[in-house]
Amino acid sequence: MSVLNVINPLFQAYIVYSAILTLKLIAVSSMTGYTRLTRRVFSNPEDVKNFRGVVKLDDPVVERTRRAHMNDLENIPPFWILGALYITTGPGLAWTTLLFRSFTVCRIIHTIVYILPVPQPSRAIAYGIPYIINWYMGIQVVSFYISAM
Amino acid sequence: MSVLNVINPLFQAYIVYSAILTLKLIAVSSMTGYTRLTRRVFSNPEDVKNFRGVVKLDDPVVERTRRAHMNDLENIPPFWILGALYITTGPGLAWTTLLFRSFTVCRIIHTIVYILPVPQPSRAIAYGIPYIINWYMGIQVVSFYISAM
Amino acid sequence: MSVLNVINPLFQAYIVYSAILTLKLIAVSSMTGYTRLTRRVFSNPEDVKNFRGVVKLDDPVVERTRRAHMNDLENIPPFWILGALYITTGPGLAWTTLLFRSFTVCRIIHTIVYILPVPQPSRAIAYGIPYIINWYMGIQVVSFYISAM
Repeated sequence: MSVLNVINPLFQAYIVYSAILTLKLIAVSSMTGYTRLTRRVFSNPEDVKNFRGVVKLDDPVVERTRRAHMNDLENIPPFWILGALYITTGPGLAWTTLLFRSFTVCRIIHTIVYILPVPQPSRAIAYGIPYIINWYMGIQVVSFYISAM
Repeated sequence: MSVLNVINPLFQAYIVYSAILTLKLIAVSSMTGYTRLTRRVFSNPEDVKNFRGVVKLDDPVVERTRRAHMNDLENIPPFWILGALYITTGPGLAWTTLLFRSFTVCRIIHTIVYILPVPQPSRAIAYGIPYIINWYMGIQVVSFYISAM
Repeated sequence: MSVLNVINPLFQAYIVYSAILTLKLIAVSSMTGYTRLTRRVFSNPEDVKNFRGVVKLDDPVVERTRRAHMNDLENIPPFWILGALYITTGPGLAWTTLLFRSFTVCRIIHTIVYILPVPQPSRAIAYGIPYIINWYMGIQVVSFYISAM
């Protein structure tokens, strides 16, 4: 039977956490837009006119939000693919849900501590746990399928 | 039955629009390379030699193309995952096709108005509609699976 | 039957090469962190304190690693989606494995020649082959489903 089936509780867990992470990712993207509007700092000359702002590429608050967003783009898409591949290896439901939940909670904390900002090592921890989960899932996938070949 | 089945017309619509969006995304990536070659502006010293150009990180035309590409990278991958998860909730075919088609057409318009550029609010609209579609699909997915648990 | 089935050898090839590419992508992400630590160059004031470094946004070695990582983010996620969609069109196993393997090997070479760096056109070739494979798969997908409609 297909693992990527909506009746499979592993797949349901994957769907819910992936969707939450994606909504979080796109929420940070509007945060950049909101910061640009309130600080009147833009990247493009055509944006300046309507909002009486300036073109400035190094505003520290906008750049901080952009770095938080960029860090999401570097870490959340790998989760989408590795999470989906990982559940095809038939892991336990409780363990998988723990991995997915930890990943999601840490990435939400990562955004908060990056943007406020909260002193280190809070951001390093909130980055490190999901990063290790991605490696763990990737190695499990490769070793499972290579040993099955 | 598995929803992610090639006979399912919802999945076929997802496949076609995702593939078109991805081709558009990678087309913008060559546009950056093309702009670099014609303006002889590069990021790496080893690229300069062959093309008699200069290393310059703030050329306005190259940076504009790069921002258009970056904006695709922030918005199209969320569609890949949210679109795939959304069709597992069993939405209507006509409605889903409308969402996917609107997303795709707006993202193509977004690239054109960003690169020309066309005065605002054209780019804001071409950005906003797909952005709202992503949110809509994500919220539908989360609420569908959480209410089913 | 569902194509996205773990018993399908096409899907197994997709899984293995996607997972390897994703691990490579996230490995480059730690390389940036490692380069920052050894050169004591950071983006955020709160990172400087613990490691007695400086905030500097244009360190050439860090920026080179970041560009290699960025190039992965622009090319590997399109492979995840196009590779998955491509196998639904029922291509031959040997041919598909050749495409996936070439893509993966070239992207690994790309990172190495970018970071060392090795003189051009090595990087252009290691970039170009996977780029053409993405286009090929995307066009195959669109033409297959549009002719089936």
